[in-house]
Amino acid sequence: MKVVRAEIIAIGDELLYGQIVDTNSHWISKELDLLGVKVVRKTTVGDDRKDILAAFTSAESRADIILITGGLGPTQDDLTKPLMAEYFNCPIVENPAAVDAVTEFFKKRGRDITPLNILQGHLPACCTYVPNEVGTAPGMWFERNGTYWMSMPGVPHEMKKLMTDFVLPKLPTLFPLPIIVHRMVKTVGIGESWLADLIREWENALPKNIRLAYLPSLGHVKLRLTGFGQDKIQIEKDIQAQIDLVLPSIEKYVYGYDSETLETAIGKLLTTNNKTIALAESCSGGYISHLITSISGSSSYFQGAVIPYHNQFKNEILQVKNETLSSFGAVSEETVREMATGVRDLFNADFGLSSSGIAGPNGGTDEKPVGTVWISCAGEGFIETKKLQLTQDRMLNIQLTGVAVLNLLRICILEK
Amino acid sequence: MKVVRAEIIAIGDELLYGQIVDTNSHWISKELDLLGVKVVRKTTVGDDRKDILAAFTSAESRADIILITGGLGPTQDDLTKPLMAEYFNCPIVENPAAVDAVTEFFKKRGRDITPLNILQGHLPACCTYVPNEVGTAPGMWFERNGTYWMSMPGVPHEMKKLMTDFVLPKLPTLFPLPIIVHRMVKTVGIGESWLADLIREWENALPKNIRLAYLPSLGHVKLRLTGFGQDKIQIEKDIQAQIDLVLPSIEKYVYGYDSETLETAIGKLLTTNNKTIALAESCSGGYISHLITSISGSSSYFQGAVIPYHNQFKNEILQVKNETLSSFGAVSEETVREMATGVRDLFNADFGLSSSGIAGPNGGTDEKPVGTVWISCAGEGFIETKKLQLTQDRMLNIQLTGVAVLNLLRICILEK
Repeated sequence: MKVVRAEIIAIGDELLYGQIVDTNSHWISKELDLLGVKVVRKTTVGDDRKDILAAFTSAESRADIILITGGLGPTQDDLTKPLMAEYFNCPIVENPAAVDAVTEFFKKRGRDITPLNILQGHLPACCTYVPNEVGTAPGMWFERNGTYWMSMPGVPHEMKKLMTDFVLPKLPTLFPLPIIVHRMVKTVGIGESWLADLIREWENALPKNIRLAYLPSLGHVKLRLTGFGQDKIQIEKDIQAQIDLVLPSIEKYVYGYDSETLETAIGKLLTTNNKTIALAESCSGGYISHLITSISGSSSYFQGAVIPYHNQFKNEILQVKNETLSSFGAVSEETVREMATGVRDLFNADFGLSSSGIAGPNGGTDEKPVGTVWISCAGEGFIETKKLQLTQDRMLNIQLTGVAVLNLLRICILEK
Repeated sequence: MKVVRAEIIAIGDELLYGQIVDTNSHWISKELDLLGVKVVRKTTVGDDRKDILAAFTSAESRADIILITGGLGPTQDDLTKPLMAEYFNCPIVENPAAVDAVTEFFKKRGRDITPLNILQGHLPACCTYVPNEVGTAPGMWFERNGTYWMSMPGVPHEMKKLMTDFVLPKLPTLFPLPIIVHRMVKTVGIGESWLADLIREWENALPKNIRLAYLPSLGHVKLRLTGFGQDKIQIEKDIQAQIDLVLPSIEKYVYGYDSETLETAIGKLLTTNNKTIALAESCSGGYISHLITSISGSSSYFQGAVIPYHNQFKNEILQVKNETLSSFGAVSEETVREMATGVRDLFNADFGLSSSGIAGPNGGTDEKPVGTVWISCAGEGFIETKKLQLTQDRMLNIQLTGVAVLNLLRICILEK
């Protein structure tokens, strides 16, 4: 089956000057991907005649379907419509249905229509008019030499309505589309290249219809498996078989699948096991509590936290012994152990977690340089600790500490 | 003066499948705009040899500077490096400095280097090696026929560091750039349209060489003044004169300028006034403490925090009276008052801050719908409280609570 290739062209100076984030292209990509249409390129150009025409020419040479957003307002800097007329070599003429629709749009809202707005109902003679029920700029559909074009407004909810009502249902009638299935296997606690080493043989032996991608992010690596074929159920089975095959090699790093995050995975683990947690965050300063409480329903397993930024409060609130603090310092295995047990007792939780470290950029010593972080997890009959040696800036060190603490908790729930 | 034209090429299937939002291109656009470099096109292509080479060819025909992100990992699906070698027609050879750097990177982290990682130090012979201090994939700089190319990893913080340390300082040495001065006046606690009403006359009377933009973000509105001209000192003076003119109308909303954030501004205020704070965060769940402790040096004014997610701990740790909790509920003016004074006492701080509310999406009632949040600030001889009625999703409600608490603290420090 021929792959159907799509391109997205976003038009507007404001997208190039960094004043607006183009969320349209991302949304369109996702929707086309689900349909099995392959987006091969996204292009953003400004309100410039030459640049826009060059983008049209270039896209036509490659794509089966070209989706254009933006540049359809009634003002002079909006060039998409006249340039599409020029590109397709046909005049702009009054489209009575489009003029009626824009007139009705204003009437319905009790507003006077301006001559500029009436002109929005004038369209290139060679396009098919596609009504925009939620705005004033019509959609325009073109066909030439087997390539299909759709021009839509840049306003996200107008574009989405035209895509959902018109373009997405139309595509399967124009092209035989393959079936594509994505699965995401999410890992934590292992770097991309180590993971690649662990699964190299499996990766090299993947069947032709399944592709693998590594998607690294801070402290995490996601493995994306993409399967192609004719039969959705069969592809899903094929992918699951590959996951089952690789899982024994990487099981201890896998925290979840698809849209799960480390926070939601831990929430599920705690809920399933009917366990609760409490945190004593020193260097992570509330970040881990914030991650956990960002999840709706976390109040059923999150008891609370203390952020004791000074030794005095580690002692007074968490019962860390003053001699521990003076002998070993705040950033030490001994201190995080006592913080973890102290906060576990204070909040009467199943697991007590703690962090203490030097996030930077100041406060490091030869013995304990910036990035030295101790973390701990205390539970019934055990206390686990771990030392991290981080090398990033303050914010990233805090975030990496968060990932490490959540991962330590995950391991403790699973193994204890 | 010739306009300097830049293009951005983002490489990676994950950007086309809609699984990752490309925040890099937006960030790069903004930075180049500040320098006076005009971004004329952004292109996203997948991990496909032909598509990537076509994007290179097309960009070279138009741009003075081409910035490439992504496709630099050590795994097989990463094509940028071999394709740049092919495009510039030069072999990939061992770069001793780059091999040393990647070896050092692993050594510093106490981890073994893999053969795959060593290969990251092999680079096209015709590029200039640009060290990446925060990752393993080096930056690569190319020049040909007056066009400059920079290839960077797609990991945002690695790309940003290479841009900030290398590319952005280099551009003014390569091209004559116009003189542009930006100043940012940062406000909090007033919406965009109210602010616009307050300063309309001033805005309409701005001189021709100074442009104003409103940049709203969550709970904040930034006013960006952009001045153009030939003489930097004079433009700076002109902008300052306009700020001095508008300030009396908006002074109580202005917390800072340029790169200052609400957190750094508050840190400065507390340090100057030699005051300390402590927080009792219920619905904000650690978010505000995280904001405050993200600032290096915050340990001099941040005493600590308690996140008492259940009433029992509001009582046991913060001494909120059980009768207050049972009569008025956790989300009430009475409770946040006692939380604020309780945490102030516990941490022996000058200001005690508190939040309690229903972040959503569940937990609302008719009387206290989702988004009902009470906040408080207690100090020597006073307790201020404020009720918020938020309407966003859970995460945004938490973030808006954070802005409101920090702004309440700002006002208390200034007025008490």
